[in-house]
Amino acid sequence: MDRYEQVTELARRRGIMWPAFELYGGAAGFYDYGPLGALLKRKIEDTWRRFFVIGEGFAEIEAPTIGVEGIFAASGHLSGFSDPLTECQECKEVYRADHLIKHIVEVPDALSNEEIGRIIHENDIFCPECGGELSEIYEFNLMFKTTIGPGSTHPGYLRPETAQGMFINFPRLLRYFRDALPFGAVQIGKSYRNEISPRQGVIRLREFTQAEAEVFIDPRDKTHPRFPEVSDLTLRLYSQEAQERGVIDEMTLEDAVKRGIIAHQMLAYYVARTYQFLMAVGVAPERMRFRQHKADEMAHYAADCWDAEVLLERLGWIEIVGIADRTDYDLKSHMTHSQAKLTVFVPYAEPKLRQRLVVKPDMKALGPRFKGKAKAVAEALKSLDEEGLKGDVICVVVEGETVTIERDLVSFEVVEEAIRGEEVIPHVIEPSFGIDRIIYTVLDHSYSQEEVDGESRAVLRFIPAMAPLQVAVLPLMDRPELAQPAEALLQAFRREGIMAEYDTSGSIGRRYRRNDEVGTPFCVTIDYETIEEATVTIRDRDSMGQVRVPKESVVEIVSALVKGEVEFLDAGRPEEST
Amino acid sequence: MDRYEQVTELARRRGIMWPAFELYGGAAGFYDYGPLGALLKRKIEDTWRRFFVIGEGFAEIEAPTIGVEGIFAASGHLSGFSDPLTECQECKEVYRADHLIKHIVEVPDALSNEEIGRIIHENDIFCPECGGELSEIYEFNLMFKTTIGPGSTHPGYLRPETAQGMFINFPRLLRYFRDALPFGAVQIGKSYRNEISPRQGVIRLREFTQAEAEVFIDPRDKTHPRFPEVSDLTLRLYSQEAQERGVIDEMTLEDAVKRGIIAHQMLAYYVARTYQFLMAVGVAPERMRFRQHKADEMAHYAADCWDAEVLLERLGWIEIVGIADRTDYDLKSHMTHSQAKLTVFVPYAEPKLRQRLVVKPDMKALGPRFKGKAKAVAEALKSLDEEGLKGDVICVVVEGETVTIERDLVSFEVVEEAIRGEEVIPHVIEPSFGIDRIIYTVLDHSYSQEEVDGESRAVLRFIPAMAPLQVAVLPLMDRPELAQPAEALLQAFRREGIMAEYDTSGSIGRRYRRNDEVGTPFCVTIDYETIEEATVTIRDRDSMGQVRVPKESVVEIVSALVKGEVEFLDAGRPEEST
Repeated sequence: MDRYEQVTELARRRGIMWPAFELYGGAAGFYDYGPLGALLKRKIEDTWRRFFVIGEGFAEIEAPTIGVEGIFAASGHLSGFSDPLTECQECKEVYRADHLIKHIVEVPDALSNEEIGRIIHENDIFCPECGGELSEIYEFNLMFKTTIGPGSTHPGYLRPETAQGMFINFPRLLRYFRDALPFGAVQIGKSYRNEISPRQGVIRLREFTQAEAEVFIDPRDKTHPRFPEVSDLTLRLYSQEAQERGVIDEMTLEDAVKRGIIAHQMLAYYVARTYQFLMAVGVAPERMRFRQHKADEMAHYAADCWDAEVLLERLGWIEIVGIADRTDYDLKSHMTHSQAKLTVFVPYAEPKLRQRLVVKPDMKALGPRFKGKAKAVAEALKSLDEEGLKGDVICVVVEGETVTIERDLVSFEVVEEAIRGEEVIPHVIEPSFGIDRIIYTVLDHSYSQEEVDGESRAVLRFIPAMAPLQVAVLPLMDRPELAQPAEALLQAFRREGIMAEYDTSGSIGRRYRRNDEVGTPFCVTIDYETIEEATVTIRDRDSMGQVRVPKESVVEIVSALVKGEVEFLDAGRPEEST
Repeated sequence: MDRYEQVTELARRRGIMWPAFELYGGAAGFYDYGPLGALLKRKIEDTWRRFFVIGEGFAEIEAPTIGVEGIFAASGHLSGFSDPLTECQECKEVYRADHLIKHIVEVPDALSNEEIGRIIHENDIFCPECGGELSEIYEFNLMFKTTIGPGSTHPGYLRPETAQGMFINFPRLLRYFRDALPFGAVQIGKSYRNEISPRQGVIRLREFTQAEAEVFIDPRDKTHPRFPEVSDLTLRLYSQEAQERGVIDEMTLEDAVKRGIIAHQMLAYYVARTYQFLMAVGVAPERMRFRQHKADEMAHYAADCWDAEVLLERLGWIEIVGIADRTDYDLKSHMTHSQAKLTVFVPYAEPKLRQRLVVKPDMKALGPRFKGKAKAVAEALKSLDEEGLKGDVICVVVEGETVTIERDLVSFEVVEEAIRGEEVIPHVIEPSFGIDRIIYTVLDHSYSQEEVDGESRAVLRFIPAMAPLQVAVLPLMDRPELAQPAEALLQAFRREGIMAEYDTSGSIGRRYRRNDEVGTPFCVTIDYETIEEATVTIRDRDSMGQVRVPKESVVEIVSALVKGEVEFLDAGRPEEST
């Protein structure tokens, strides 16, 4: 078994996650989170909230997962969100046509369906299953489609990203933030992509969880006031240029922005926060990098785009976060499609003074002279510039006819106006996180298998605060005199908001292993010394060491250990480990 | 404007919730939660978790919202989850046929489509819009349907309830709980019902959030070990019998179970926890009751079912929670459809001893005598009871022929066997919560409008801990010497995990009103005494009173106020209110 199989087998067996609908034969691309997986998922989502809602002051909203057609006509998903398919004429199996020519063309995404078809034909590619002839290439839209209400007149689509919820609520969000830029809105929720034949477990799901932030900024200022907080951070950057060299660079964000490798501070700032978030949930820094999209893979509207990628043993480098400068593409497109005003009035720091020429024709004289045409003549005069108002007579063309007017029938003056600001279409910076991929990465990067006393020990080395269970309470033996204080301790942990489990079945060594396997960082054992001397032992998952501490302080000590406020060996009197 | 309009107008204007897709004309039955609404929703969901995940020890899981057909064939939703429709032949408007005869029949749910059609016909009912002739009644399935993958061979359905996720994961959940009853599993997530023409804002949504617990219990024991914790609770019960009298009874749960009004302790226990949860989030107890389903509205498999209902000014009594004993209906049905074993081996407290007769034919004699028939003869002998083994000769019928065997060719003895337990199909107790309806109820029950100094004041009197924002930090004037300490205080609140907002725009009175309107329980004002004497004022939303407290303890004091640990007037030195 490779690491992927070990991790997914453990996840399935211990209630972390497993393929959905097992009772009914399953369906590729759907997964269940079990009791421990749902706990881990919630912790990762809450950590994300701590960074992006509390830390950045963004507003979390919750929009429906079903959307009406207008949204996706504007977003481009209705016409552009599809894969090229081909079907075997014999066995009717369906394939991603571009995947069939991967060994021939490096970036098949860029090809038209005709070109893919030609390459398939010219290279004698047939059905990989039965060798049959393949059909013409056709487009398959990746949105799940349904119908809202009875009849078929109101199609609905399951959202392919949460982002559109923020874009179409832009007017309400702008008002909530009192009409001022910058502001950010986020959603954590389900998105859907009707993949053709998803493989790779939770890495490619048809129903998945995204956490997306849309940061609306003034397009003329892409600096970030808090950039100095992160500018010293050294990251592994794989820029377009580095990719050509095939070498990952390490440099500070300060340097990356200065040297024009990352387009601007705004993007670099969220690259930094993304790195800090991924570190906080337990992604291994040495198996993480930030890769810039190449020119041919970047969306046509994007100014710059960086992916956080992680290295997984079986799958190679996988994208788990995308951070893009989407410019004004989305708002502009929704403005066109919805006819709504999606601009912001941005006041100048000081009103700008502008000189304007005001022309005043003498209507008392012009009225009687030109009668019905007088108004048109006046308008023509008003549109003249200073140059046109020179000389003794003024000539204007009205309804194809040149009209001459005496200079003294037209007065003008230059007035000064204060322009308070201007309407701008905000640009959008979008950090977009794939929560399921992050969960798998945390499992994969936390997993290790090692030999201990001639036996194999599997461990999930979660960061203690991220572990689904923080502590296991284990009476040394399943006897009432030990079970009773153990159960009281369990309740004491839970009252403090520490996720604690209770386990009496099997030898103490077996119970330690069982907890190692699900990453419980600390086990508290109740033994006869607990009764005699009011002490308990705490056992550390990673070192397998043990310390003995007073029973009345164990909740507080474990709480400090989980938060990393105290070193394990300083937490109590070291004991012989078992 | 009635209360419903006032509340929804406020919710829309202040970023709590609003109809979705406004930019594209909207779609009935879909709502967005804005920044404040999403905060409130999260608090209500987290309170639910505190009660049902932490408090009851249930396991939270997360299953996909799309399901495969097999699930809903077993659950009954594929065939039974539909509404009877009729279409106007003229204007093509579609109606719930049963709704058109509501004024004629009290419970139209119980009628067949033929009967509804007959009543429509006999009562000369035509299209309410245009007076046109109505079509035959047809069934419309309320599940949103889609297709998984390309082609149409794999239909998928958006789940109409989260419950099925727990049922189809029963084997994995049972294993997680180490093969022992009782245990509970919960989900909080989206469910979908393709209503014909939803009205009533968030009360009837096509996409909504449920929080459901499925508690798997031994069917032979419906007592609850923690029932004594809640048996004294007095609730407003509207039983089947009380509904006939038209009077809501008040009684303890102890009485309700003893008198057979609530079927058993298990159900009564979750009725109690439901009541406590609804009180904790801010539902008004005097506008709440528990109503038993009448015989003709209860699902055919349910043993008993109670709804928590709330009184809303415009809509009357509305169901917000259902608590049902679903018996073994769901697991039995999934066993039949999936062929999986969904039973639990329940060991007896002590093995039961059973006496069994063991018959031993003398095969050495019978073999040669009966040759090929010998085995069948032996089997026939083994199935005899003690009575049949009496007498000198024994008669058995083998392959239609009576065979006589001498008594001494057959020995028998009575052995004692220990039976350790038996396989049972668990019963399911289901408390099912409609989160959106609860949110609306909390808004509606919290809302009040009152005259203050000749001006109208709108207030959402949230329980302080449930308010989206706990505290507003307000510098008396927007000047740097006040803004600076105010911003520092804002950060101090946020560091303590207290949701704080900052507001400088408008007069202090206007800012108090603005905060009253979104239910912020406390406003902290920074004034010149803050600079001179290091004190700030705290202003109470409900009494509009003010106290002055030392600046360095204000975070701690507000935290205690939010938790209800201190009375407002004891929190500091009372001041003249503004």
